Amino acid sequence: MNTFGELLRVTTFGESHGPAIGCVIDGCPPGVSIAPEDFVDDLARRATGRTRHTSQRHEADVVEILSGVYEGRTTGTPIALVVRNTDAKSKDYDAISQTFRPGHADYTYWQKYGHRDPRGGGRSSARETTMRVAAGVIAKRWLREKFGVRVRGHLAQIGDVVPRGFDWDAVEGNPFFWPDTAQVAELEAYMDALRKSGDSVGARITVVADGVPPGWGEPIYGKLDGELASALMSINAVKGVEIGDGFAVVAQHGSEHRDEITSDGFLSNHAGGILGGISTGQQVIVSAAFKPTSSLRLPARSLDLEGQPVEVVTHGRHDPCVGVRATPICEAMVALVLMDQALRHRAQCGDVGDVSPRIKPGKAKR
Amino acid sequence: MNTFGELLRVTTFGESHGPAIGCVIDGCPPGVSIAPEDFVDDLARRATGRTRHTSQRHEADVVEILSGVYEGRTTGTPIALVVRNTDAKSKDYDAISQTFRPGHADYTYWQKYGHRDPRGGGRSSARETTMRVAAGVIAKRWLREKFGVRVRGHLAQIGDVVPRGFDWDAVEGNPFFWPDTAQVAELEAYMDALRKSGDSVGARITVVADGVPPGWGEPIYGKLDGELASALMSINAVKGVEIGDGFAVVAQHGSEHRDEITSDGFLSNHAGGILGGISTGQQVIVSAAFKPTSSLRLPARSLDLEGQPVEVVTHGRHDPCVGVRATPICEAMVALVLMDQALRHRAQCGDVGDVSPRIKPGKAKR
Amino acid sequence: MNTFGELLRVTTFGESHGPAIGCVIDGCPPGVSIAPEDFVDDLARRATGRTRHTSQRHEADVVEILSGVYEGRTTGTPIALVVRNTDAKSKDYDAISQTFRPGHADYTYWQKYGHRDPRGGGRSSARETTMRVAAGVIAKRWLREKFGVRVRGHLAQIGDVVPRGFDWDAVEGNPFFWPDTAQVAELEAYMDALRKSGDSVGARITVVADGVPPGWGEPIYGKLDGELASALMSINAVKGVEIGDGFAVVAQHGSEHRDEITSDGFLSNHAGGILGGISTGQQVIVSAAFKPTSSLRLPARSLDLEGQPVEVVTHGRHDPCVGVRATPICEAMVALVLMDQALRHRAQCGDVGDVSPRIKPGKAKR
Amino acid sequence: MNTFGELLRVTTFGESHGPAIGCVIDGCPPGVSIAPEDFVDDLARRATGRTRHTSQRHEADVVEILSGVYEGRTTGTPIALVVRNTDAKSKDYDAISQTFRPGHADYTYWQKYGHRDPRGGGRSSARETTMRVAAGVIAKRWLREKFGVRVRGHLAQIGDVVPRGFDWDAVEGNPFFWPDTAQVAELEAYMDALRKSGDSVGARITVVADGVPPGWGEPIYGKLDGELASALMSINAVKGVEIGDGFAVVAQHGSEHRDEITSDGFLSNHAGGILGGISTGQQVIVSAAFKPTSSLRLPARSLDLEGQPVEVVTHGRHDPCVGVRATPICEAMVALVLMDQALRHRAQCGDVGDVSPRIKPGKAKR
Repeated sequence: MNTFGELLRVTTFGESHGPAIGCVIDGCPPGVSIAPEDFVDDLARRATGRTRHTSQRHEADVVEILSGVYEGRTTGTPIALVVRNTDAKSKDYDAISQTFRPGHADYTYWQKYGHRDPRGGGRSSARETTMRVAAGVIAKRWLREKFGVRVRGHLAQIGDVVPRGFDWDAVEGNPFFWPDTAQVAELEAYMDALRKSGDSVGARITVVADGVPPGWGEPIYGKLDGELASALMSINAVKGVEIGDGFAVVAQHGSEHRDEITSDGFLSNHAGGILGGISTGQQVIVSAAFKPTSSLRLPARSLDLEGQPVEVVTHGRHDPCVGVRATPICEAMVALVLMDQALRHRAQCGDVGDVSPRIKPGKAKR
Repeated sequence: MNTFGELLRVTTFGESHGPAIGCVIDGCPPGVSIAPEDFVDDLARRATGRTRHTSQRHEADVVEILSGVYEGRTTGTPIALVVRNTDAKSKDYDAISQTFRPGHADYTYWQKYGHRDPRGGGRSSARETTMRVAAGVIAKRWLREKFGVRVRGHLAQIGDVVPRGFDWDAVEGNPFFWPDTAQVAELEAYMDALRKSGDSVGARITVVADGVPPGWGEPIYGKLDGELASALMSINAVKGVEIGDGFAVVAQHGSEHRDEITSDGFLSNHAGGILGGISTGQQVIVSAAFKPTSSLRLPARSLDLEGQPVEVVTHGRHDPCVGVRATPICEAMVALVLMDQALRHRAQCGDVGDVSPRIKPGKAKR
Repeated sequence: MNTFGELLRVTTFGESHGPAIGCVIDGCPPGVSIAPEDFVDDLARRATGRTRHTSQRHEADVVEILSGVYEGRTTGTPIALVVRNTDAKSKDYDAISQTFRPGHADYTYWQKYGHRDPRGGGRSSARETTMRVAAGVIAKRWLREKFGVRVRGHLAQIGDVVPRGFDWDAVEGNPFFWPDTAQVAELEAYMDALRKSGDSVGARITVVADGVPPGWGEPIYGKLDGELASALMSINAVKGVEIGDGFAVVAQHGSEHRDEITSDGFLSNHAGGILGGISTGQQVIVSAAFKPTSSLRLPARSLDLEGQPVEVVTHGRHDPCVGVRATPICEAMVALVLMDQALRHRAQCGDVGDVSPRIKPGKAKR
Repeated sequence: MNTFGELLRVTTFGESHGPAIGCVIDGCPPGVSIAPEDFVDDLARRATGRTRHTSQRHEADVVEILSGVYEGRTTGTPIALVVRNTDAKSKDYDAISQTFRPGHADYTYWQKYGHRDPRGGGRSSARETTMRVAAGVIAKRWLREKFGVRVRGHLAQIGDVVPRGFDWDAVEGNPFFWPDTAQVAELEAYMDALRKSGDSVGARITVVADGVPPGWGEPIYGKLDGELASALMSINAVKGVEIGDGFAVVAQHGSEHRDEITSDGFLSNHAGGILGGISTGQQVIVSAAFKPTSSLRLPARSLDLEGQPVEVVTHGRHDPCVGVRATPICEAMVALVLMDQALRHRAQCGDVGDVSPRIKPGKAKR
């Protein structure tokens, strides 16, 4: 299905090369201030074509608000957003419309539905994530205004390069969302070489939410971490999700992993701010692994629609590293999950007042 | 919420030390043969107390079928299963009922609900997973009989020990679900030392589903991989989920990662059998990271209900490595996701007949 | 599916002649006081065998609480309730297990599932409504304690007999939930004659909720009236639902129907307390039509499992008027809808404080 | 929420006087042929301004398909439809924007959300039903092509006028969807007099679905009749819903009501084609009661936003009988419910083959 969330429900629609993409956001509380220009920044952060390191598709990404907002504020009715596709070059895809590109959803859509929209990947294109980012803008704002929650992400690895330093202020100052300014030139050279080689590489993105109060999360099947895992894994190209220390816990001992508590708060945050599926009041930390895109100038073996062997080469506009501009998408999904959980929490536990004792978040912070 | 799945819906209930745990399975097709004894094997595989390497709680885990089965076959009505708790030793927990155990859900439940059931972790105990395994028995059977799908898992890492060899036949022959018999003695020594030290360690589990036809999975938010991620992350102690190569993709190149296709089928399976959220017809491969349990004999700093510093030591029955008996739980969740997706697929795409060409799974197999 | 509600979710299970019936109530806020004896009154009001005017099946209807309650209060985890079947006389049904009883679900279950549980109607029996009443007890309590909402119902017509007077105090004083004590003897004679004749008759039940604040209800597809209609229509034997004046509106003029407003409040309540799917703050009034039971001693034509003509006569224990004991079932469904809507309302609109002006309910009251 | 259906999910959005209204249809099987012109007929049947007997708002109601259709066929991805509002005259509503119109949702939206969009009723306007009709076009087509199901409706009462004769062929030949051509002139005079008087009147609409196979419907809470009740009650102005004989069952005897069965099929259809929540294979018959509109030229007492008494007179464009053009809306909702249930049925019971014996629908037909 194409709907995400339980109480804040986002339904996206649209194909990469159809007339438009859009979404309907249902369940947003009334009174949130929102205007078309509020979407500009995050959509630009996600957009292609802003630097030479991403696909050269140039979309204006102008958001039209069709409903749900009156005199600059949400009314409580569904908010419909539409973005017209203006730079869809379907002819780029004529050559590949008769083949199944390796590593793409061509074959799986074909098997599922019995036919497919071959233009730019149709529905399976990352273009759909534009609307996730747009919806995330509203969630981020509500979380910020209502609870002081701040959601932000950064690139945490690209190929085998990892950050040497860490500074949130650096992240928005380079096209890679990289937390160490000193490495940016190195990354640019790395990406230029990659693009020239016709190949691609994977990436890891980490998102951190500050200010999440303790108590958010449904404890069994709608766990905060379970919903975050589902949310991030639903983004194109993601193959892994981690909460807090993630797979590093496999080699940890319990005496090291468990975050001890003193009057000054938690002494560490290996758990990534979630215990038993519920937020602890610390930073919520989640990471995702993005695979390298399979659309390459380097030829690959495949079959065509008749089942005959073909060689596939992609000449369309593609990203050498799809992770580079995925940071705002990950942030948006985390924000949507948090807002949904906040609404679910107050539905069931709205009667529960302030609970003491409240453990301080402690000094362990990213 | 306490319900898992869209069309095959499993609702679990019960606390670790309450009178019983149970589940209601809704949406199961009619005509599936099922009897109380069918649950015995998988529940025994998951159970505590069978070897010295797991918690010494001894539960008979006898499943009573309260509804939904008539003359040995499912009727299409909801199947209610109940397992009585018989070896609940609440007095073990008196000492800790006034504290927040580090690394446990004590504090988060307290903050969410304003009070908690302190007996054995209450609802947050891994005892709940008994019912997931029971529900999984039905899903496994249906998948096997209807589609020839086989779901099985194994331990893939414990601490820093990884399998040297791999043989499915070895997995069920040792208490660790370890795929290399030659290492079992080493693991037993490792676990004995760990138990003596009073500490614990993490683990990685991998589940493989053979025989999944291409086309299963909702392509945007109910993706097969997204649902698997949510399902595994919802298991107690899981901190990370991977599909196929998982986080290894970060350092891969696209030319290496993309699974090429020939007339003999896929040449590799880095994708773990899923592209665009939909199964490819290859093995579906998913892994989960289990954190080391935080219930240790080694003391830890924490606060009590009045917010005063305390030292927490756990004397109850606990597992030095919770991952050791989590393999059947992971298998169950994968089976439940697959059955749910199979039902969803035929709801929307039941009109789509055999689609050609069909790409062979290829030789890349675990 | 077998789950009712969005945020307060009730899943029922069990067959008329299986070992037990039960339900799982998920989403109930923590802290609601509840004990097994709290279910006694409403289950007795619904039970068969208390007077000669209902089926002579005698069930103890003892509720066992399996989970979700600790030290007398709900914990926020799912509440599982089980009632054992003790007076199931399956042999009564041997004769009819090979036929399709007219007016019953025998044939439709047979066609849907390919087989059926013939014992006492299996899942389609009104025995399932026991658990609705049990769940409703919790909803009624929460509504009463938290908002001062009171939900109560009465029989409003039986055959062609309608109440001459109306007094809430009369309702609980007779086995018919009839609001005019002066007519009770007449009704008893009517029912005795009916039972002797071997025939049955229909009934109308009206439920009134006092104290519902304005603003409850999802305005388009989860409308308060839409959910009430679905809830009541889901009760066995119901063939019609009305809100406020119901079908009488067809012949009304707008100038008569619209409830005018003055400083003293609404001047009438033709709308039944709901406008645009949202409560107005007046009494919420809803009615349901119950068909006459089809299980009669009078013979009827039908077919058997081989498609051959047969004559069906029912000798089992049945109600001459199923509506007689359906009042608590209707109340329970109304209470469950209201509690669910209250939770949904505060999820989305929990930020909206007191809104003025507040229109008074006015004097129009049942 | 603004989504209808479980497996065929329709989410509508838009306000009466906003830039556009629209919907997203999710879950539609692939391969259904659909084009913009397919919506023309049903939207025209529902539209205002076609005769003097409806509101004089003139909307072109041109449907733009934004997604989900490729080369004239549905792809299985979400279908987004948008209709621009072109004849919104907000100034008509300036006078009433400061009052709560009796019988309208003005006050309840105000209380729920803390503010409202006063232009033409905003979200609560019947304009929203345009998109239900559009979605229903797709459902009708799928039901017709796949199962031979035909869904059609007619006006069954207006004020105290009931049809004297009945002929399906007459229904589409007059602006009232009236089944007796001989009464049309009488109805026109009746409506002209009503319009002149400034008053309004209610109506009853009946919808009949032919060809529904036995077995559709979820037997407890997602009953076919329960879903139909919810669907019809969710239409603006509906205050009652009946299945088959509806409220007439209250005065019936069981020996009369139960539909007997012979080798020639069912002998009657008092049940309206549904038993135990599941279709019997007969005509599915459902009726709805529409209240008289409250927007009248006749003055009514009310309060303004400051709580002060005011006199409300409506000069905008309104229907003297909203039921007159509601027939296609009712048909659409019935078609959407049936398609949803068909998909749900094959999800769970897709393994159940042809079941014998099959009882014939019999001769009782409307």
